[in-house]
Amino acid sequence: MAKKYVYGFGGGTAEGRADMKDLLGGKGANLAEMANLGIPVPPGFTISAAACVEFFASGGKYPEGMWEEVQEHLAEVERLTGKKFGDAENPLLVSVRSGARVSMPGMMDTVLNLGLNDATVVGLTKMAGGDERFVYDSYRRFVTMFGDVVLGVPHSDFEKILNEHKEKQGVKLDTELSADSLKAIAAAGKKLVEARTGKPFPEDPVEQLKLAINAVFNSWFNERAKTYRARYGIPEDWGTAVNVQAMVFGNTGERSGTGVAFTRNPATGENVFYGEFLMNAQGEDVVAGIRTPEKIEKLAEQLPEAYKELLDIRERLEKHYRDMQDIEFTIENGKLFMLQTRTGKRTGRAAIQVAVDMVDSGMITKEEAILRVGPEHIEQMLHRAIDPNEKLDVIARGLPASPGAGVGEIVFTAEDAIAAKEAKRKVVLVRAETSPEDVGGMIASEGILTARGGMTSHAAVVARGMGKCCVAGASSLIIDEEKKTLTVGDIVLKEGDVITLDGVNGLVARGAAKLVDPQMTGNFGKFMGWVDEVRKLGVRTNADNPRDAKRARDFGAEGIGLTRTEHMFFEADRLPAMREMILAEDAEGRRAALARILPMQREDFIGIFRAMEGLPVTIRLLDPPLHEFLPSQDTDIRSLAKDMGVSFEHLKNKVQELKEMNPMLGHRGCRLGISMPEITEMQARAIFEAACQVQKEGIKVLPEVMIPLVGKVEEIENQRAVVDRVAKDVFDTEGVQVEYMVGTMIEIPRACVVADKIARVAEFFSFGTNDLTQMTFGYSRDDAGKFIAEYLEKGILKDDPFQSIDVEGVGGMVEMGIQRGRSTNPDLEVGICGEHGGEPRSVEFCHKVGMDYVSCSPFRVPVARLAAAQAVVKFDK
Amino acid sequence: MAKKYVYGFGGGTAEGRADMKDLLGGKGANLAEMANLGIPVPPGFTISAAACVEFFASGGKYPEGMWEEVQEHLAEVERLTGKKFGDAENPLLVSVRSGARVSMPGMMDTVLNLGLNDATVVGLTKMAGGDERFVYDSYRRFVTMFGDVVLGVPHSDFEKILNEHKEKQGVKLDTELSADSLKAIAAAGKKLVEARTGKPFPEDPVEQLKLAINAVFNSWFNERAKTYRARYGIPEDWGTAVNVQAMVFGNTGERSGTGVAFTRNPATGENVFYGEFLMNAQGEDVVAGIRTPEKIEKLAEQLPEAYKELLDIRERLEKHYRDMQDIEFTIENGKLFMLQTRTGKRTGRAAIQVAVDMVDSGMITKEEAILRVGPEHIEQMLHRAIDPNEKLDVIARGLPASPGAGVGEIVFTAEDAIAAKEAKRKVVLVRAETSPEDVGGMIASEGILTARGGMTSHAAVVARGMGKCCVAGASSLIIDEEKKTLTVGDIVLKEGDVITLDGVNGLVARGAAKLVDPQMTGNFGKFMGWVDEVRKLGVRTNADNPRDAKRARDFGAEGIGLTRTEHMFFEADRLPAMREMILAEDAEGRRAALARILPMQREDFIGIFRAMEGLPVTIRLLDPPLHEFLPSQDTDIRSLAKDMGVSFEHLKNKVQELKEMNPMLGHRGCRLGISMPEITEMQARAIFEAACQVQKEGIKVLPEVMIPLVGKVEEIENQRAVVDRVAKDVFDTEGVQVEYMVGTMIEIPRACVVADKIARVAEFFSFGTNDLTQMTFGYSRDDAGKFIAEYLEKGILKDDPFQSIDVEGVGGMVEMGIQRGRSTNPDLEVGICGEHGGEPRSVEFCHKVGMDYVSCSPFRVPVARLAAAQAVVKFDK
Repeated sequence: MAKKYVYGFGGGTAEGRADMKDLLGGKGANLAEMANLGIPVPPGFTISAAACVEFFASGGKYPEGMWEEVQEHLAEVERLTGKKFGDAENPLLVSVRSGARVSMPGMMDTVLNLGLNDATVVGLTKMAGGDERFVYDSYRRFVTMFGDVVLGVPHSDFEKILNEHKEKQGVKLDTELSADSLKAIAAAGKKLVEARTGKPFPEDPVEQLKLAINAVFNSWFNERAKTYRARYGIPEDWGTAVNVQAMVFGNTGERSGTGVAFTRNPATGENVFYGEFLMNAQGEDVVAGIRTPEKIEKLAEQLPEAYKELLDIRERLEKHYRDMQDIEFTIENGKLFMLQTRTGKRTGRAAIQVAVDMVDSGMITKEEAILRVGPEHIEQMLHRAIDPNEKLDVIARGLPASPGAGVGEIVFTAEDAIAAKEAKRKVVLVRAETSPEDVGGMIASEGILTARGGMTSHAAVVARGMGKCCVAGASSLIIDEEKKTLTVGDIVLKEGDVITLDGVNGLVARGAAKLVDPQMTGNFGKFMGWVDEVRKLGVRTNADNPRDAKRARDFGAEGIGLTRTEHMFFEADRLPAMREMILAEDAEGRRAALARILPMQREDFIGIFRAMEGLPVTIRLLDPPLHEFLPSQDTDIRSLAKDMGVSFEHLKNKVQELKEMNPMLGHRGCRLGISMPEITEMQARAIFEAACQVQKEGIKVLPEVMIPLVGKVEEIENQRAVVDRVAKDVFDTEGVQVEYMVGTMIEIPRACVVADKIARVAEFFSFGTNDLTQMTFGYSRDDAGKFIAEYLEKGILKDDPFQSIDVEGVGGMVEMGIQRGRSTNPDLEVGICGEHGGEPRSVEFCHKVGMDYVSCSPFRVPVARLAAAQAVVKFDK
Repeated sequence: MAKKYVYGFGGGTAEGRADMKDLLGGKGANLAEMANLGIPVPPGFTISAAACVEFFASGGKYPEGMWEEVQEHLAEVERLTGKKFGDAENPLLVSVRSGARVSMPGMMDTVLNLGLNDATVVGLTKMAGGDERFVYDSYRRFVTMFGDVVLGVPHSDFEKILNEHKEKQGVKLDTELSADSLKAIAAAGKKLVEARTGKPFPEDPVEQLKLAINAVFNSWFNERAKTYRARYGIPEDWGTAVNVQAMVFGNTGERSGTGVAFTRNPATGENVFYGEFLMNAQGEDVVAGIRTPEKIEKLAEQLPEAYKELLDIRERLEKHYRDMQDIEFTIENGKLFMLQTRTGKRTGRAAIQVAVDMVDSGMITKEEAILRVGPEHIEQMLHRAIDPNEKLDVIARGLPASPGAGVGEIVFTAEDAIAAKEAKRKVVLVRAETSPEDVGGMIASEGILTARGGMTSHAAVVARGMGKCCVAGASSLIIDEEKKTLTVGDIVLKEGDVITLDGVNGLVARGAAKLVDPQMTGNFGKFMGWVDEVRKLGVRTNADNPRDAKRARDFGAEGIGLTRTEHMFFEADRLPAMREMILAEDAEGRRAALARILPMQREDFIGIFRAMEGLPVTIRLLDPPLHEFLPSQDTDIRSLAKDMGVSFEHLKNKVQELKEMNPMLGHRGCRLGISMPEITEMQARAIFEAACQVQKEGIKVLPEVMIPLVGKVEEIENQRAVVDRVAKDVFDTEGVQVEYMVGTMIEIPRACVVADKIARVAEFFSFGTNDLTQMTFGYSRDDAGKFIAEYLEKGILKDDPFQSIDVEGVGGMVEMGIQRGRSTNPDLEVGICGEHGGEPRSVEFCHKVGMDYVSCSPFRVPVARLAAAQAVVKFDK
């Protein structure tokens, strides 16, 4: 049997179906589906993506039999429409559109009115009742589209002709052009094509059709499409389908029109028909914005029959697709045709409203509802946002590093931010990049903007932890911290100028946009309840203080997966003691300095333990290299030396001694604790003394002590011995016994390889996939931004591995680590505490490899809960 | 049946054997073996290491039945000697010695003369014919040894007593002390013990024996032993055996004596009996160096009978052990006793001579001969060395970074070294650490000394590559490059002062030591011929220029496994063009600069291809980050900007732009080639043009192009496409076809995980285990020296993973990479080109995991050949 390449639709039936998107593309499959439902669509046919694939495989030839099928289907369209392709009397015109498996905005545009030539234009005039303006407007549009899209003559050259004629005729709008002018424009366009291509404009409709089909096929490999595919990870071997469909016209008079609509309100989710239309117009005109479209309800007055049919179709489509639809329609002389239906995009609020309503009305199950809400929807629900009605004056783009929105005056230093906050002024902190010393200023700001750094830069990570809006790596900005100016192109902003940050879309805008507050409505709670019923993965939070811990708990966190104790050391009241410890000559000197930190650190833990009553709290021991606690610039060293009462040389020597070529791979993590066990001792003591005290208050405490950067079992053995010894000592003194666990962060490739050994000593593994990604790829998070961007562009990377876990490589290491770890310790608790813990695809991965929980910043907790539930619905049958 | 814990020997028979070292320790097993051979040994018994293990397991109790066995065996010793332990008339005295499976110098010392007390000393006097001096000297020695070793009273306190008595008696030497003095010293020693321990000195010989056995057991866990075990990777659970043996005395008169000997000359390997002895002396006296021992041949004159027996034993031991032995003996009143035999340590020259002689005489097979020569022996053969007769004035110790020896005046800069070379002065280059800019100075020097950096620091790697002596990381040195002084403790050396470096042992000495030239005798060639017959692993070299390539070929290299092209870029004639390329604004500018490098680089390859005629040459494309080619200090930037005719700000900006937080994980390797394909193009063009030209000369060329730092298959796809395109282009132009391969360096953990995918595109894998170790461990080679030293000390690391491959972790990644790579490409060629390629244990690993070849610096090639052959003999049965 010969292969089938072409699938017809129309006349109440179709050869395709909605579930044949892989073969027919999204558009073609849905047209077929509507036809099958008996919904009126202009008849046509879809040439399958498989044909496209074979076309390329054979070096640009149609697969055997394809053209014959096209001809047969064209004949069927002629039969259904009663028109004839290329006929001078009663010509059939068609549209030709690409249509891949997923929507690809970067691909070929549409060709409308194909089949027109100097002969058929006459027949069209007859059919249009002599409306020459309509006919020649159609003709010149066709010549332009075909010339541009199929033959590659730049669109601007056709525009030039159009403008010349408008000038000549002394009019401003296209609609004011006379039929003669339009006719002349069409003729001039055809001449232009001949001049440019060296061949006359193809008059033969069959040749036009072949050329258009070839052009659609070839558009699969044009630069825009390739870039788009690379960016979104779409395989090259999918190919695109081609839709050829009889033209219908919404611009043939007062009983014609065109419109777009949503089956429900896409902004609120309210169950009302929502859309707009224009009478006597084509789709283009709606988009062009020359005339103001009317609300869809008004159609009832103008064409009650058509409106009634549309309402009926609205209901049938929703029932059939069981989701809100985004539809396009055209009315030709009173007759309604549907041109497209697809799932409607919606806001977070609408997504939840629609999902809850559809479950309540029995249209979908809770599991289906869970798949209907996206992570971006949840995110929108948690933050203040820019009012959707605002028009932003965007001056730069960066990475959407932390969602939400922020409006304030520009300040360039953390000190200025803090001062402004005290003076009750709202500010946005603008820095080339942030460092731990900026944290106070970040807290005081409405948002953070940086010129350098990626999604996991200091600014991004800290801002997400705070739930504060951040746009990072806006590389077009030139920040002069001395002059206190921010320059982008010709625009120079000074301190005090107001800007708006859009952390959801990574935008920087001039002026103050209006913001709207998050709406945690009852539906949100209801929906999240379903999510929690379904998911299997636990969701914890990364939190370093009681405030964040509390907030995360409100967002549904079931424990803390990562408390970074070093943030505590950076605080102003303990940094001096920390520095003294670093400068101490020996363990005794270090102990003395640490003794001053102990009571403060104990208070930190008391606060956190109270906030997380009854839930586990994972505390990571000191991780960063010590030089992070010392200044690096001579002037700062000099001033600190003075404060500390030591010589500049002494401090400078220490800074030099601690300096590392690659601090990422240096003396940090448990390597510090092994060199200086007194640090581990102090931290363990603070943890267990706090735990005992809180437990004595009648509050259940579940500390999990995490040893960072373990690569060899001997390292955790060494550190665990210290922790256990201190625990016993504290429990003996306090007369209390507290349940606790000791485990490790798995963030070094070697740890994955020898996870079986490590798991004999560790009670839990927490995958630190930030560092694991750095080391598995050999990418420094601080430096790789530049070439990762290039890699994404060139398709070498599909995703930034610091944003979404690299399932194949880093994921392979994680899987190995879990499998080997559980092989010797079946009770091993396994989680993730890297930035990936709040990223939906990464959460899905964590579910699939059987982790016990993910941990993420407080504002990602609801997203992680959703992603965990979605993973169950998608993969666990 | 009860377990057996004690094994007797003596009287021409024994319960143990030489192959029972695991149970009896080395010393005990060999004593048993000699006894079995009928060689006279003082009778005794060995308490097994298993008893020691049980002793610790039970918290310090003897295993059931052990003590009874000891008593039985002691009775047997009494029977064989005709003496009685603790008997006042005819007392048996014993020695008690520890003896682990391998020799552990850090463990317990020996206790001699055990069994003496105030009663038995009288009997001993009788037995010694009334020689009270001998008897009380023995007694006071026993009290001192027992007090120190068993009871823990410091040796120095006993020395104090001794010195007081010497003063009192007005003598200088111990031997001048009278019997009465010695008696008083013994008594005072016992009082000292009582005062310190609170208990009287144990008089009961049985209690003495128990305490001594306990002390030997416990010494297994003393600090020195633990450190030693950690350092040499000896498991804790081995335990130590205890040897208890009847005392024999070499100091009972003119027919007594003691000596040590080797069955052949350990310096030259000559087959002559070689040793020395002292009449009327104990072992201690030989070591003390108060009397000058006589050559062993002289014994023939003094005690011809004993000498004859000794010669006979020499022959029997060699025949039996089939290797050169190192023996200890004592003659008591004309009767010869053997106290120890073990394999004799030897120089490289001797090792090869002995191995070849023994094969020639049919004593051992070639395979056995291969195991008799160590890597350190081969190394000694290749370099100039310090004359073994020289006494060095050692002032500092560092890492033995590159073998050989160097003598010269100190210089502190590369420029000074080059100037000195031109002035025909010999110099040693002393730097805090070296950088690529020092390479010229390193070439001009006799040796390189650095204060910082490890075995794989720049200085170490480059020096090894040059075969130049290097002592690295001599951290006690303070180098002041401005004042041009080198300070260590109180010693201050200036420029021009002469020092000697010993690269084999990592020593820095004052003054000029005499050096001796390497001796590549006929035996060496013969031996290496056997090595090559046996080994399966290929051995290539890492060489960046024709000179090194040629040298390595002379050393037996079968190809080049790594040519680093960046060293070529650093050379003075091309660095300006390289810098111009880096500063270029766009690809065109870069191309222009690269075009100037092309002919030079082509010449490099022509030279190398000619030198390696018929052998494969693996060329790695540009690897280091670009900032390495620019200066970092403002003054240097300013001067370079002037030279290049660009503004300081422009150059400074570029330097800033290229600066990376973690350059190790930055924009380098194939990431550069992907960002700037014109670099890859130029390099590929240089390679293929050179290959075509040399092939036209009738010389076979086998280039293997290596893409560095690949972590994703897309990277090698991208770069391979460039290389193949250029190759085709060059071949078309030149009208020649050259066989070539394209492969990758596997040095990123991710590459091991996805090796199956990469191997579909790569024809070869070369494991870059330097970087793979850095990323698998998360250790920066430049920074980790400090904590690696600490880790080795604390037993967390058994070996520096940059010296010997970490089989478990990094090795696990390598195995995964090979297995996955070959799963999709069975023809995949697999090698290693990291520093590990020349390290014997790593070579063994490479053999086991089935690599095709190892590649190492020229001077390591013979070592790698040997290690590869040894791996076959050891593991392939």
